[in-house]
Amino acid sequence: MEELTGAQLIAESLKTQNVEYMFGIVGVPIIEVAMAAQAAGIKYVGMRNEQAVEACRLFSKFSVRPSSLEVIPSVVEKAVRASMYGRPGACYIDIAGDMVNAKVDRSQIRVVSCCPDPPVSLADHGAVAEAVSVLKTAKRPLVIIGKGAAYSRAETALREFVETSGLPFLPTPMGKGVLPDDHPHCVAAARSRLALLQADVILLLGARLNWILHFGLPPRFDPNVKIIQVDLCAEEMGNNVRPAVALLGDINAVVTQLLQGICKDGWKYGSGTEWWSLLRNKIAANAKISKTLALQSTVPMNYYTVFHHVSQLLPHDCIIISEGANTMDIGRTMLNNYLPRHRLDAGTFGTMGVGLGFAIAAATLERSNGEKGRRIVCVEGDSAFGFSGMEVETMCRYNLPVVIIVVNNNGIYSGVDPETWREMAKMGDLTSIAPPVTLLPEARYDEVMAAFGGKGYLVRTVEELRSALELSLTDWQRPSLLNVLIDPSSDRKQQEFPWLTRSNL
Amino acid sequence: MEELTGAQLIAESLKTQNVEYMFGIVGVPIIEVAMAAQAAGIKYVGMRNEQAVEACRLFSKFSVRPSSLEVIPSVVEKAVRASMYGRPGACYIDIAGDMVNAKVDRSQIRVVSCCPDPPVSLADHGAVAEAVSVLKTAKRPLVIIGKGAAYSRAETALREFVETSGLPFLPTPMGKGVLPDDHPHCVAAARSRLALLQADVILLLGARLNWILHFGLPPRFDPNVKIIQVDLCAEEMGNNVRPAVALLGDINAVVTQLLQGICKDGWKYGSGTEWWSLLRNKIAANAKISKTLALQSTVPMNYYTVFHHVSQLLPHDCIIISEGANTMDIGRTMLNNYLPRHRLDAGTFGTMGVGLGFAIAAATLERSNGEKGRRIVCVEGDSAFGFSGMEVETMCRYNLPVVIIVVNNNGIYSGVDPETWREMAKMGDLTSIAPPVTLLPEARYDEVMAAFGGKGYLVRTVEELRSALELSLTDWQRPSLLNVLIDPSSDRKQQEFPWLTRSNL
Amino acid sequence: MEELTGAQLIAESLKTQNVEYMFGIVGVPIIEVAMAAQAAGIKYVGMRNEQAVEACRLFSKFSVRPSSLEVIPSVVEKAVRASMYGRPGACYIDIAGDMVNAKVDRSQIRVVSCCPDPPVSLADHGAVAEAVSVLKTAKRPLVIIGKGAAYSRAETALREFVETSGLPFLPTPMGKGVLPDDHPHCVAAARSRLALLQADVILLLGARLNWILHFGLPPRFDPNVKIIQVDLCAEEMGNNVRPAVALLGDINAVVTQLLQGICKDGWKYGSGTEWWSLLRNKIAANAKISKTLALQSTVPMNYYTVFHHVSQLLPHDCIIISEGANTMDIGRTMLNNYLPRHRLDAGTFGTMGVGLGFAIAAATLERSNGEKGRRIVCVEGDSAFGFSGMEVETMCRYNLPVVIIVVNNNGIYSGVDPETWREMAKMGDLTSIAPPVTLLPEARYDEVMAAFGGKGYLVRTVEELRSALELSLTDWQRPSLLNVLIDPSSDRKQQEFPWLTRSNL
Amino acid sequence: MEELTGAQLIAESLKTQNVEYMFGIVGVPIIEVAMAAQAAGIKYVGMRNEQAVEACRLFSKFSVRPSSLEVIPSVVEKAVRASMYGRPGACYIDIAGDMVNAKVDRSQIRVVSCCPDPPVSLADHGAVAEAVSVLKTAKRPLVIIGKGAAYSRAETALREFVETSGLPFLPTPMGKGVLPDDHPHCVAAARSRLALLQADVILLLGARLNWILHFGLPPRFDPNVKIIQVDLCAEEMGNNVRPAVALLGDINAVVTQLLQGICKDGWKYGSGTEWWSLLRNKIAANAKISKTLALQSTVPMNYYTVFHHVSQLLPHDCIIISEGANTMDIGRTMLNNYLPRHRLDAGTFGTMGVGLGFAIAAATLERSNGEKGRRIVCVEGDSAFGFSGMEVETMCRYNLPVVIIVVNNNGIYSGVDPETWREMAKMGDLTSIAPPVTLLPEARYDEVMAAFGGKGYLVRTVEELRSALELSLTDWQRPSLLNVLIDPSSDRKQQEFPWLTRSNL
Repeated sequence: MEELTGAQLIAESLKTQNVEYMFGIVGVPIIEVAMAAQAAGIKYVGMRNEQAVEACRLFSKFSVRPSSLEVIPSVVEKAVRASMYGRPGACYIDIAGDMVNAKVDRSQIRVVSCCPDPPVSLADHGAVAEAVSVLKTAKRPLVIIGKGAAYSRAETALREFVETSGLPFLPTPMGKGVLPDDHPHCVAAARSRLALLQADVILLLGARLNWILHFGLPPRFDPNVKIIQVDLCAEEMGNNVRPAVALLGDINAVVTQLLQGICKDGWKYGSGTEWWSLLRNKIAANAKISKTLALQSTVPMNYYTVFHHVSQLLPHDCIIISEGANTMDIGRTMLNNYLPRHRLDAGTFGTMGVGLGFAIAAATLERSNGEKGRRIVCVEGDSAFGFSGMEVETMCRYNLPVVIIVVNNNGIYSGVDPETWREMAKMGDLTSIAPPVTLLPEARYDEVMAAFGGKGYLVRTVEELRSALELSLTDWQRPSLLNVLIDPSSDRKQQEFPWLTRSNL
Repeated sequence: MEELTGAQLIAESLKTQNVEYMFGIVGVPIIEVAMAAQAAGIKYVGMRNEQAVEACRLFSKFSVRPSSLEVIPSVVEKAVRASMYGRPGACYIDIAGDMVNAKVDRSQIRVVSCCPDPPVSLADHGAVAEAVSVLKTAKRPLVIIGKGAAYSRAETALREFVETSGLPFLPTPMGKGVLPDDHPHCVAAARSRLALLQADVILLLGARLNWILHFGLPPRFDPNVKIIQVDLCAEEMGNNVRPAVALLGDINAVVTQLLQGICKDGWKYGSGTEWWSLLRNKIAANAKISKTLALQSTVPMNYYTVFHHVSQLLPHDCIIISEGANTMDIGRTMLNNYLPRHRLDAGTFGTMGVGLGFAIAAATLERSNGEKGRRIVCVEGDSAFGFSGMEVETMCRYNLPVVIIVVNNNGIYSGVDPETWREMAKMGDLTSIAPPVTLLPEARYDEVMAAFGGKGYLVRTVEELRSALELSLTDWQRPSLLNVLIDPSSDRKQQEFPWLTRSNL
Repeated sequence: MEELTGAQLIAESLKTQNVEYMFGIVGVPIIEVAMAAQAAGIKYVGMRNEQAVEACRLFSKFSVRPSSLEVIPSVVEKAVRASMYGRPGACYIDIAGDMVNAKVDRSQIRVVSCCPDPPVSLADHGAVAEAVSVLKTAKRPLVIIGKGAAYSRAETALREFVETSGLPFLPTPMGKGVLPDDHPHCVAAARSRLALLQADVILLLGARLNWILHFGLPPRFDPNVKIIQVDLCAEEMGNNVRPAVALLGDINAVVTQLLQGICKDGWKYGSGTEWWSLLRNKIAANAKISKTLALQSTVPMNYYTVFHHVSQLLPHDCIIISEGANTMDIGRTMLNNYLPRHRLDAGTFGTMGVGLGFAIAAATLERSNGEKGRRIVCVEGDSAFGFSGMEVETMCRYNLPVVIIVVNNNGIYSGVDPETWREMAKMGDLTSIAPPVTLLPEARYDEVMAAFGGKGYLVRTVEELRSALELSLTDWQRPSLLNVLIDPSSDRKQQEFPWLTRSNL
Repeated sequence: MEELTGAQLIAESLKTQNVEYMFGIVGVPIIEVAMAAQAAGIKYVGMRNEQAVEACRLFSKFSVRPSSLEVIPSVVEKAVRASMYGRPGACYIDIAGDMVNAKVDRSQIRVVSCCPDPPVSLADHGAVAEAVSVLKTAKRPLVIIGKGAAYSRAETALREFVETSGLPFLPTPMGKGVLPDDHPHCVAAARSRLALLQADVILLLGARLNWILHFGLPPRFDPNVKIIQVDLCAEEMGNNVRPAVALLGDINAVVTQLLQGICKDGWKYGSGTEWWSLLRNKIAANAKISKTLALQSTVPMNYYTVFHHVSQLLPHDCIIISEGANTMDIGRTMLNNYLPRHRLDAGTFGTMGVGLGFAIAAATLERSNGEKGRRIVCVEGDSAFGFSGMEVETMCRYNLPVVIIVVNNNGIYSGVDPETWREMAKMGDLTSIAPPVTLLPEARYDEVMAAFGGKGYLVRTVEELRSALELSLTDWQRPSLLNVLIDPSSDRKQQEFPWLTRSNL
């Protein structure tokens, strides 16, 4: 008879499901679980802040509280499986504290094997044919690439489909990189005022018509737009807008079906159409405006200047993580993604504080993959950085070479300059006077990184920015943080949800 | 400007989604909703007991509390759509009471159309080929037909598949009738001790490996059984047993794919195999035992005698509704279903009290479909009947010609005879003495029906049973209730979950 | 080493806390708990419907799910204690099914004793003095007696206080009987249009200013009314209206303090004041109107006639249970209570279906108290009866001599007569035509009782009513049900919450 | 007609309830609320991390979601009132985002006034007499002072009671300071191994017998101890141990009653008893051991040395805030409190991350009270500091002169020294090798403070500690942080909940 503790059973069950990393904060009785995990060959990363874990519980796809030790292996298998099958999502297992040190005889534990890859389904053949026929009638077609396309690894089929069909596309924030942002068919730079607004047929690939896409409704969309909705979740079909055609199935598989459909009779949407002309002109006009902003040589810099230069220096295979308001919003339009699943941000709910955790996870995995791996670049607003800034200690502790760029405008949405701040402070109690959006001007986030042995840079000019970023990108021994001071009034006029509804000029 | 009340908006939103019936109990402020529903052309059935509604809330697939009147049409559309798309399920909309009489300008309400039929997906072609190849290797194959097959209306494809392939099948409780119970390939009568136990390959069509199927695990299943799992829900794949092949897609569509697969090379599982011989012998032996029990001429009758005669008299197209412990369990094996979606019972959770509500809903719909419609037959244990027995008033009120058969053993699982009961009562306080399972002996449930103008029959013998049932089946003017007194000790020894795990002899 | 099953431990833990009765519906694994309870000397009453239990869970004061068998005794003690200490309320213990048959060594169970009576607190002396001084300034004082006064057994002190102070009082629905309804100081018959509306100082004894008391706000109360609030729950103080004086403490203790306060200087509110004249005149006028209605000799009878005669025949010490809309509302004003804690009704939430369960519990307890005990009289609306009408079988099974009076108006709030119903039925489908409030006319609820061996009476006239009630009240062998048919249009014009806001004429 | 936005209504409702400060993180649509609050005269403090707010929601005493703008004033009044009446606790109001900018006519808003102070109740006179009589029989009496005594402001009455009665007392963690820790009757230094263990009568004043007091059970308490429980919450009476006497009422009022009780006949527990001798000897012995540890002159220092010197320098009226494991535990025994309600810590649930937020709140309030106010001293473990360390920016932004002492042992419970850490790093991936409790050795938390303009000190020796603390305590212009490096193996052997069950030697 071999006895196991609950902690050992949890660790073994996770290991069986090929879980390689555990992230947490120890305390009684988590210590035992963390130690058992290391003993079982799982790597343990100690964090500083439990906030992201809290978020998981509230939004988990599957949550369960095991009633006995015996069921833990199957509960873990079920949670891991549920996190990957169907629409992916976090799962939550709530294990009573006294189970961790309780004991169970191994012979009473049913052996559970690792769950296989998710099953794949295809769309109905008739519906595919109908979708192709709707596409052919389109005068102003548009493909929208969502995160479902990234999850299903549709990049190869999708590139062939887009190039064969000649269709313009744009990605959602989480769909960026499935096809490269500099692909000639990408019309992201004409997104809001033209592509979404005037499209008459939209092929929606694994994207939800939620607030990020303005619910697919007027005045941001043509009221008569025909939507071909491709999703693996039946319940998602028809949310907010009734689709002209609903294609239920794995995105990669359905894109392949669509590709076969258009290949059969050699159809292609011409590059000389009026729609393409409109799109190209809009893109060129917007590029010109951005360029003008980007090349302004004022100090402090504006957002566009910062992102212009960052964009030039980042390697194409880096993983970009981003959170913040203006920073995430403008950064998304200025920083190109070239590879699928190389971008993480605050997501549908705009959850602040997730960025550094994402970066730590990505960097840990990247290092275990080989020599140096890909670069992890974290682009943070100054307020966003504050939610979990102490995690830089974690990066330093494990020597994770993350590059953090804090775009610092002294506030949330906007701040004030040091001089104005000092004047306000003289006027009386800042809790009565200071606008709620303001933070301490020119706060030295770079020194927070330096406090733990990472490299911090204070950046005010283009030259400093380029130099600091180049140095950071060559340092594989420690994390770096660029504290990029920009014009605190760089923000334009307030919009509703300004960080996500901001148009592309 | 046209003003609508919340009640009118709710009613119109339901009508737009083709909701034809509303069931409820009025009270402030439900009266207004019920009246608005009738005004909008929805039929209203007033019930006596809200229990089933409570159950809905707890187990609803989608639940929502609208934050304003304006969103009600889209919330109703979403709830109706969610109830049908993917795995079907009840949805719950919780509308604040003060919204019912609040008013809104119609011009502010976005028009929402009726949601279309659910989208359909196919299984991956490679996985279908693999499934066919596994089937061909089977020595002791078995098809299990679950309620998913009924939901997807797979009956036509499935009959062709079973007959073409030559495979034996058995239905789950909710899968009964997709193919007729008297189909020559049906091996339900050899279910537990042979078919499930010894099958080496199982094609699982829209059925869950939950406790009803003993979780697909030993000792009730062969530990090496290969399961080909067909389901439309990705997260269901691999629950409790890892499938040899997972076919994700609409059951009807996937059965059609499998049929094409076996047709391609003309494969058929032979009727002369040893497995078929074993199955046929077991079926014959069990039939003999059942027959012996069924033909016992003792009074009081036993379960088998009752169901034998009921089975002979029921029309093949009747809709059988059933709840109870022994009654539902034995009745399921003795009362054949011949048509798909013609059976409703207490379901996965064994929820008591749903039977009469199901019967009222079925009878209301049936009547609206034409002259007399199909017969609704409700087979109830006496304890089960008690949960919502007052609903016979509803049947009488609307002249719904439901036939209720109460199989009355004076208790739950088992009871005592009147003589024993009187002796116990003399011994002292019955709350201390009477076994918790006992109910009043020979309670006159038939008179409860008669109290409201329905027809009640007290039945003790085979002759009375046949006569009463024949009369009931010819009366289309009112409901009937047969109070069938059986031997209170008719139950056999207690098993775990006796009403559902009872083997088929 | 002595082993206990979970069921035995639950039973023993309840017995230790002096729990004498268990009510339930057996099923796996409740059977074991029920049998263990009987073995431990707890009486078990098998019910037909679980609805009331559901309600408990949702509204429980304390709910807990024990994590191990060992904690059950202390969890049970805590639940029993919490149900009685502070503001009383139901508690819910959710025990995992597999604990029932699990075993534990008795030596591992910490002995827990029965919890003592609740502790009692007094109001602050200064606040009592202030309350007395406010009372003395009152021109139009009023005492409102709530259920808190009943819980704290304040009847003796309260009678002395009311008679010594000379103040008028009225009870809330649950406060009825703490002082007799026919007490000369009771002004319930002038409640809404005078007493509540014009009082300038209200002494509120254990009653909440919720919707039953119109939140204590205009237009139903004087906007300048001063409220002396007496409650044992600090958080209740100031709900909806800020009190002039808040007296925190046990109601009985605080009433005693107030009595001492007014006794000290011999203050008394004179019986010759204008306020007493107004109140007495209003009471007399209302009595005259009620009398006129009560003595109408029409058939069918109206509510007032029914309650007038019932009131005359009921023994003063009977326990009245009531639920329904008009029935509960009008019955409350017409049926006097003479003793504290002798009335139960649908309560603050108007929960339908609780009446028969209350009656069974009261009758079971009453019988165990002695020879015949007090009469349990259940006054039910016909719709209310439908929620749990099958419980009459439970009454018959245990020979509980409950007297049920169903005041039957063929509907909810109001119904139609048989002739009108037949005409409607000819016009088409009743689900489209029948008002949602209607039930089957002249439904024979009396026969439902007879079906199980109880005594049923169909009552149409005053003579039949008096005769049936007299017979029922002398029969101690079985339950009786009087099905009293009244004028289905007896209801007056609809009001918001008509069953509870109806004024006293 | 005057229109108000929801934001204005929220702000005004809070102002009416005398809410003076708002703490938060702006984002859409909180900006509007924060600005409206400032406009209404409420001070706004912008924070960096929302974690503490999350905790509030989960553990709130009262939580509500207003269904319309009109109810906001009364909901706010109710929440503020509930937070203070009865047992105090946080309340949670969840306001839908779209309400903030919605508008309402002021005339439709019912005026709600500020809720008055909580009502006060007394214990029953008989129970008080019984308690006095039990006290008189005690051979080894003990008074335990809990946070209920602090909430009720019982300090004056309690000091007189303790001195008049001659009884020994000890405070719970949250009861520290109600009487000064250096009071001659304080026996905290003999807490676990003597006072709790051997007391035969305990007067429990507003303290719960939860895990902090070992549930009042053996082996940490005498099984025959008689407990006189004083609490304002009836439901708390008898939790875990049945009290000999239960005194329900306001702690201050009941202590006054007890004082009158013992004064009546001049009873006093003698200072020459054997119990007092035992206690005094134990205190002296423990003081000697602590002193020995405190005076060790090794570098790195140990916990006792650090706290010994800190204790000597802190002003008696400072407010001590503390969180961490060993840091909070040992610090509680070494740092005296001299005034009531001058201490805040991680509380019953050991919630990490609350310390800096508490400090900011206390410092903001203190400044508004006058010139410099009292000193706010925050004693943090290094791990605890990590949960919300970025809040030092908030302190710097508002120039809040908080003194933070980080007792840094390079880990959670214990860490490793830099040399060992470097050796481990050479051995391979730290995620596999480093104990889960370790953090980066000698992390420079002082530089985090300096990064935002506060004063940081790195402290290794007694001299550095004293010097840095003295400088910090004279600086009222900015916050300071002392990063006190101690021996990372300073922890003793692991105990269950080591930070709170650690005995006092």
